[in-house]
Amino acid sequence: MTKKYRAGILGATGTVGQRFIQLLQAHPQFEVTALAASDRSAGKPYSEACTWRLPGEMPSAVKTIVVQPPQPPLDCDFVFSSLPGDIARQSEESFARAGYPVISNSSAFRMDADVPLLIPEVNHEHLRLLDTQRVERDFEGHGFIVTNPNCSTIMIALALAPLHARFGIEAAVVTTMQALSGAGYPGVPSLDINDNVIPFISNEEEKIETETQKILGKVSGSSIQAAEFAVSAQCHRVNVSDGHMAAVRVKFSRPVELTEVRDALATFTSLPQEMRLHSAPPQPIIVRGEADRPQPRLDRDAGDGMSVTIGRIARDRVLDYRFVALSHNTIRGAAGAAILNAELLAATSRLGRSPG
Amino acid sequence: MTKKYRAGILGATGTVGQRFIQLLQAHPQFEVTALAASDRSAGKPYSEACTWRLPGEMPSAVKTIVVQPPQPPLDCDFVFSSLPGDIARQSEESFARAGYPVISNSSAFRMDADVPLLIPEVNHEHLRLLDTQRVERDFEGHGFIVTNPNCSTIMIALALAPLHARFGIEAAVVTTMQALSGAGYPGVPSLDINDNVIPFISNEEEKIETETQKILGKVSGSSIQAAEFAVSAQCHRVNVSDGHMAAVRVKFSRPVELTEVRDALATFTSLPQEMRLHSAPPQPIIVRGEADRPQPRLDRDAGDGMSVTIGRIARDRVLDYRFVALSHNTIRGAAGAAILNAELLAATSRLGRSPG
Amino acid sequence: MTKKYRAGILGATGTVGQRFIQLLQAHPQFEVTALAASDRSAGKPYSEACTWRLPGEMPSAVKTIVVQPPQPPLDCDFVFSSLPGDIARQSEESFARAGYPVISNSSAFRMDADVPLLIPEVNHEHLRLLDTQRVERDFEGHGFIVTNPNCSTIMIALALAPLHARFGIEAAVVTTMQALSGAGYPGVPSLDINDNVIPFISNEEEKIETETQKILGKVSGSSIQAAEFAVSAQCHRVNVSDGHMAAVRVKFSRPVELTEVRDALATFTSLPQEMRLHSAPPQPIIVRGEADRPQPRLDRDAGDGMSVTIGRIARDRVLDYRFVALSHNTIRGAAGAAILNAELLAATSRLGRSPG
Amino acid sequence: MTKKYRAGILGATGTVGQRFIQLLQAHPQFEVTALAASDRSAGKPYSEACTWRLPGEMPSAVKTIVVQPPQPPLDCDFVFSSLPGDIARQSEESFARAGYPVISNSSAFRMDADVPLLIPEVNHEHLRLLDTQRVERDFEGHGFIVTNPNCSTIMIALALAPLHARFGIEAAVVTTMQALSGAGYPGVPSLDINDNVIPFISNEEEKIETETQKILGKVSGSSIQAAEFAVSAQCHRVNVSDGHMAAVRVKFSRPVELTEVRDALATFTSLPQEMRLHSAPPQPIIVRGEADRPQPRLDRDAGDGMSVTIGRIARDRVLDYRFVALSHNTIRGAAGAAILNAELLAATSRLGRSPG
Repeated sequence: MTKKYRAGILGATGTVGQRFIQLLQAHPQFEVTALAASDRSAGKPYSEACTWRLPGEMPSAVKTIVVQPPQPPLDCDFVFSSLPGDIARQSEESFARAGYPVISNSSAFRMDADVPLLIPEVNHEHLRLLDTQRVERDFEGHGFIVTNPNCSTIMIALALAPLHARFGIEAAVVTTMQALSGAGYPGVPSLDINDNVIPFISNEEEKIETETQKILGKVSGSSIQAAEFAVSAQCHRVNVSDGHMAAVRVKFSRPVELTEVRDALATFTSLPQEMRLHSAPPQPIIVRGEADRPQPRLDRDAGDGMSVTIGRIARDRVLDYRFVALSHNTIRGAAGAAILNAELLAATSRLGRSPG
Repeated sequence: MTKKYRAGILGATGTVGQRFIQLLQAHPQFEVTALAASDRSAGKPYSEACTWRLPGEMPSAVKTIVVQPPQPPLDCDFVFSSLPGDIARQSEESFARAGYPVISNSSAFRMDADVPLLIPEVNHEHLRLLDTQRVERDFEGHGFIVTNPNCSTIMIALALAPLHARFGIEAAVVTTMQALSGAGYPGVPSLDINDNVIPFISNEEEKIETETQKILGKVSGSSIQAAEFAVSAQCHRVNVSDGHMAAVRVKFSRPVELTEVRDALATFTSLPQEMRLHSAPPQPIIVRGEADRPQPRLDRDAGDGMSVTIGRIARDRVLDYRFVALSHNTIRGAAGAAILNAELLAATSRLGRSPG
Repeated sequence: MTKKYRAGILGATGTVGQRFIQLLQAHPQFEVTALAASDRSAGKPYSEACTWRLPGEMPSAVKTIVVQPPQPPLDCDFVFSSLPGDIARQSEESFARAGYPVISNSSAFRMDADVPLLIPEVNHEHLRLLDTQRVERDFEGHGFIVTNPNCSTIMIALALAPLHARFGIEAAVVTTMQALSGAGYPGVPSLDINDNVIPFISNEEEKIETETQKILGKVSGSSIQAAEFAVSAQCHRVNVSDGHMAAVRVKFSRPVELTEVRDALATFTSLPQEMRLHSAPPQPIIVRGEADRPQPRLDRDAGDGMSVTIGRIARDRVLDYRFVALSHNTIRGAAGAAILNAELLAATSRLGRSPG
Repeated sequence: MTKKYRAGILGATGTVGQRFIQLLQAHPQFEVTALAASDRSAGKPYSEACTWRLPGEMPSAVKTIVVQPPQPPLDCDFVFSSLPGDIARQSEESFARAGYPVISNSSAFRMDADVPLLIPEVNHEHLRLLDTQRVERDFEGHGFIVTNPNCSTIMIALALAPLHARFGIEAAVVTTMQALSGAGYPGVPSLDINDNVIPFISNEEEKIETETQKILGKVSGSSIQAAEFAVSAQCHRVNVSDGHMAAVRVKFSRPVELTEVRDALATFTSLPQEMRLHSAPPQPIIVRGEADRPQPRLDRDAGDGMSVTIGRIARDRVLDYRFVALSHNTIRGAAGAAILNAELLAATSRLGRSPG
């Protein structure tokens, strides 16, 4: 086996940072060699800097890594970032400028015209933007920035992608019921969500509405032409630990049969499945026939948290079809998404080695 | 003060039955004089037949009333019914035939062409159907059947009514997050809903889609012409004790300003407010401006559980406007709805006295 | 009716501060005239400084009161304090020194030898300490400090008081299951408590073990001789909004019959009931006979949140008897406790008027 | 590898029955060849008879097995039973009489004098009772009945065993906070436990108090002499899916240092660890030092659900020491316990082959 890529994690002490470490624990291509965080934890070994909040123990390999500030240089070949929005922009750019590939889960660069908002199954051709990006931004060597979408958007765009490809989508109406882990830690106070639903997640509706159009857009010259259909999103926080759910309606450009819809979703596979990328689930979309599925507790771990589960596909009285989608918001919706992005970048020889 | 009407309650031991008793405890016009239930509780005093599940104590006035089978005669002037669907049809009809006004929360007769599906603020003119009903069904004396809508539909129809009246609705898209008490008792097993959402409530989507059209329809001769706009409903059970929430989008027949929408909702009052019916809330619809309201725990008791709270009114990218609505599903959505219906019927001299 | 006492509230924006305002909204003797808080809210009207988190609306009377820093002078006759522990000590002492009666829910002075740790039903004679306190602390005019116990301790001490008085307690073993609101706001992160129990509440076990002994102690000269029996407390946070529960075992100094235990608890009343203090519940302790009571959701509001509900009284195999106790932790356990203290102080002419 | 034992499961459609199937899915010694259930599911393939409620899919190997009534003969070498108490006694006895080893999780025979109440780490010598049992009950061939304790008792007895062995226990005081899955399915209605704690689990306190004494008793001739120390149990249901927690106090026969207590627990291993039984966790008891552990969500899966996690070990003011224990109630507390029992029986050549 070839030598592993050495990965750094920016925002390593947060909820998503911990997921990165957990998911990379036995990864065949990547090993964690550097950890950085923006808070007061820099300078401490990770075992002291971080209160581990995932079930199971903190992987022993990272316990003694001393947490660094999120600035280059770091001892690694590339970085994953789950930095909070406010500091992500400056930190990520400085890493890319210094020659590190930056694979980011943060929202800072998602909507920049020259930054791919990547879901490997959906829009791998958007990676062409990297050529422009490198030139225009003056990034050193292998440096670039690739982002993955918002935790809800990934699931929605993955579900819409095969439908848009086959039938053409004219409009999509999405209503989400989102898990607590989406808000990070400490996140939502228990007094706010006990016996309750909160119909507000800051900027979430806007992100879903705009990111989806970019993801499903087409490369046109050196930029992306956003998909033209309108997306409407209403977002709610529910008392669930992990697993975002979305009730989705779609309107198509042409008449479509129910079996065609089901078939388009159930048979969908793409490049990551062909390339057998390590984190690519055999089925990006799992269609279930039971009347009461998907459910967060039962389906969030499908495909090791990387599959979107879809059920209740039916004709809709106002738009054309409707269904319910669910995926694990901190795996497919965050850390797992970025790792799959990294795997695609490695497989397509875009992950250079060793600036750090 | 005049003598009170004597009310019987069919389905008295269930969740909604208990709410009837609680809400009628100090009612100025109605007093509970008879209790009936379909289960093995007939023959026992209510204090033995019923495990009281609402906060606070079982009202002492009903403790010694002996539970009867749900068949006439009962010692009362009229009956409230919250019988389960399967036996409601036969039982309610037998009471109406025997001359009792039947004010029902059950679904059995809701969609019958000659039965009003009544929300006093919305469609009091539908009571004209009672003339036809009496003639065609051969009911004795004061006997008739009036129903109230499904717990989610009431809230939705109340919210749509002023919008439809002013702007004309062309389509409504509704996604609900419904409380546990809507499933009765024992209802949803805790193992199913702990850390979970269930995207299925039997027949609920169909009820919302069809009942709403009937409620907002117009009397045409001896029947109701259903409203012509399409309704789409996706329904979910969330881990909340009381308070149904709905994310709603609407498309109007004409261009409308945001302030018009807000104004139409916030200023809405109707006949029950004019008549000062005892259970009519001063504001049937309360509009809130905070970004994170309504919430079940904070808003379900607004207007003593009889107001619908609406927030997050905004333009929608696919339909025209969207908002979030919330109301108490066992008060405005069930027992309180039927009691308000009874108050309107009493105020319009339709509640005759004493077949029992 | 005589003029009302004018009350200031220190810590007015917190969870307990809001309860004070809610409970004083229609109080016959006290009106809120001043609000203070230690955070960045000083200088703003209360409606802006405070996010109201209790069901129902912020009382309109306080909306325009400008929040002050928690330092004298304040425009009031006396102050309620729910300041956080770290700043309470300095702030409360400065008010007492300036002549204000300080009725505190904070832990700062609870264990000071000359400060009454008051439960009016249990140890009103501890108020004699105020004579010493005034002399030794050099407080101006009417200035003094009276505290109420920790939210769990109040319930436990109230339950033990009639047993200790009649039978003599030799040991008490207490295991609590405590509500989220006991941790204030934002308090416990939802990710920590969803589908979980946390067996740790900082300093809680120590407070219960030591405060209980002081409360049930006897005045001896100018100090309190703590009760001599040992108290063992193990404390847990459970996913409940309001209502602390405790499983309690007691060992008595002499053989006692089960009926005596039940009778001692069920018939207990004391000075506040005799004096008909406004917030005194008719029954400080309500004994229930059902096998599955008390329960937080069903019993926390008993006696308007001022009664302790006790059930499952039985012989114990290791100690002598056991039972389960429950009370509302932010009413009887905090704001309501302090208000009852103030009512007793007013009724015994210890609440002077108008330093402010 | 030798041929696997063929296992039948009585009560296969219930919560614990499903855990048996899940845990035996890849077991090196046992394969599931027969399924039986007492309900209306007999005659149907398991995939139709059972609604699978555990995360993940129903193992495909059992889908086509036709469910039988719980009466011999069954096509298997021995049976696991998780039948409900009322029918377990007759059914299990009939299997033992027909020559099948019966390894039962039900409560029916637990307290019978000649039936081992087995925890392999604690009282494997109780298996000597099987000699008596066979003679007195007239069981055919390999037939016998071995039971495992109640889900809470296992955890408590496991925790007390090394302490009793080293220091002698004089009294144990236990307060449990138990998970929903302990009540089976549908079990606890969500309306009962949302925002609530229920201080009652039928017969649970009695089971803990009596079973613990039997388990920690000594074989004396042909029977068990129960341990003489008293056990006090108070039991509560909390809103947690899996993982029973217990606050425990113990009084020892002699003075003991804190480090001795910790050491006795942390270093405990026993026969199953020596024999390297497949389901035996390396550490039957895991001691944690953090102030806020164990917690159900974080610790229930320790040792694949077979370890008891203990924390908060400290001196107690009334008894001698206290701690908090936690284990997975449907793994170590039910199905996993019975499987470990079967592994010990197989390893000691007590599991005969093929009556079925």
